[in-house]
Amino acid sequence: MSILVVGSVAFDSVKTPFGEVNEVLGGSGTYFSTSASYFAGIKLVAVVGTDFPDEHIEKLESHNIDLEGLTKVEGKTFRWKGRYDFDLNQAHTLDTQLNVFSDFDPVIPEEYRKSPFVFLANIDPELQHKVLDQVEAPKLVACDTMNFWIEGKPDALRALLKRVDICVINEGEAREFAGEASLVKAANKILAEGPRCLIVKRGEYGALMFNGDSIFSAPAYPLEDIFDPTGAGDSFAGGLMGYLANTDDVSDANIRKAIIFGTVMASFNVEAFSLDRLGSLTLEEIRDRYAEIKRLTHFEEL
Amino acid sequence: MSILVVGSVAFDSVKTPFGEVNEVLGGSGTYFSTSASYFAGIKLVAVVGTDFPDEHIEKLESHNIDLEGLTKVEGKTFRWKGRYDFDLNQAHTLDTQLNVFSDFDPVIPEEYRKSPFVFLANIDPELQHKVLDQVEAPKLVACDTMNFWIEGKPDALRALLKRVDICVINEGEAREFAGEASLVKAANKILAEGPRCLIVKRGEYGALMFNGDSIFSAPAYPLEDIFDPTGAGDSFAGGLMGYLANTDDVSDANIRKAIIFGTVMASFNVEAFSLDRLGSLTLEEIRDRYAEIKRLTHFEEL
Repeated sequence: MSILVVGSVAFDSVKTPFGEVNEVLGGSGTYFSTSASYFAGIKLVAVVGTDFPDEHIEKLESHNIDLEGLTKVEGKTFRWKGRYDFDLNQAHTLDTQLNVFSDFDPVIPEEYRKSPFVFLANIDPELQHKVLDQVEAPKLVACDTMNFWIEGKPDALRALLKRVDICVINEGEAREFAGEASLVKAANKILAEGPRCLIVKRGEYGALMFNGDSIFSAPAYPLEDIFDPTGAGDSFAGGLMGYLANTDDVSDANIRKAIIFGTVMASFNVEAFSLDRLGSLTLEEIRDRYAEIKRLTHFEEL
Repeated sequence: MSILVVGSVAFDSVKTPFGEVNEVLGGSGTYFSTSASYFAGIKLVAVVGTDFPDEHIEKLESHNIDLEGLTKVEGKTFRWKGRYDFDLNQAHTLDTQLNVFSDFDPVIPEEYRKSPFVFLANIDPELQHKVLDQVEAPKLVACDTMNFWIEGKPDALRALLKRVDICVINEGEAREFAGEASLVKAANKILAEGPRCLIVKRGEYGALMFNGDSIFSAPAYPLEDIFDPTGAGDSFAGGLMGYLANTDDVSDANIRKAIIFGTVMASFNVEAFSLDRLGSLTLEEIRDRYAEIKRLTHFEEL
């Protein structure tokens, strides 16, 4: 099964305690697509400027990512500049240049419209609605969002939640959106808005999945060093959606496995800048880390 | 198997977003003993003042806690006053009156000295050493500590680590003690000081256990409301040590189960002030919550 993803393709400049890079390939669509490409066929809808080099196109194509939906328009590609200190859970944005992204109006190519799996990466919720208006009866829709939209377009976001199956969100943003200090109460409030499943990302503390009936607690993979957290959430979503599309099974038990694959992909991504690690994995490495996380969490029944 | 515990017995005054209490029974020795008493016989060494009421003695005795080592001396009992805001991971101390605790010099009764399991709750590491000087070849020694001793008596603490099997410590304190932002590196540094097992408490994010060969990631039990976090760490240690003593099995697999029992006991403790919940549990409630945590973390192998 294939996945349609709509998100950003960008140039990132990042400084962490371990080094820095300048204008490397990034963006939510890039991280999601690369991560999910190990599991399923990806159709990417995004926009870049005329400064976007062929080598990046080739890099994405080498992962069999379908780029018919990647539009190149006159102008400069979206740029993000940020810094992480030793508290690697917290990104400090230094500069954002939307450039061609500021006029982004996603048009879904005809052949993409029947995609059974749809991922709406973190963009303006009004654009997320426009994407859903163009697709035909997808089997599963998931979305991400962020505090910027929670504060700026809460009504569009609330309406979007009625149209998605899975919402993926950061812990602090879940609390902010629901106006609840208790995460369990916040999750129940968000579920009441529509999605059947809420996945709360907690950075180095893993993830929690709520579906109204049960809660699943997933650990993070303990790394000696988190080299660069940029794209961790999108890589997580890529592993999650990739595995669901690969198995074409959206049961609760399979969503739990998919969350662990998300954890695996995020853990590889943060080991290096840009796609340096995420872009060069083997299926064996992915499976081995899944098995490691199984051992990490194992304890016997009574 | 029985457990010798040395810690504090105190009057706590606590304010949380859910209510407040004045001079209720608290202290690390109290929380640990009550929690562990569901699993094993407890011998408590601590000191109280002449203001300590009989009803508290009876409360502890009702849990079959051996109080031969609880000394009552002229003066006032240790008092702690604190506040928690909505970030319930962080206690704000408003007042500490050591009172009789300031001259505490633990003397281990003759019948306690052969206790196979020893828990050194969070007190001056020099006193923790004095306790170990008085016991005879215990099977397993565990200790807790805090930033106050890490900063004030690092050498005594470092020497203590060579004499204990298990060290239980908060996440921030592990990082501070090791001088490492990376928790995995911090854990390896602490293990190099002596203990064969390090258990890092992460509050609402659960716990990590490091033993040099493997890491175990335990979740927290997701509660709608954390009513009062006071004593959570000591209740955790009580469930941990209680289960180890109950089963007389200190294998890695059994330590993992014991950590889950610690998680269970801490989760009950934070549901109410003082011993209001921790002090009135049934074994069935404890087992049921263990099983719930098993389901909470379950995902299938590949």
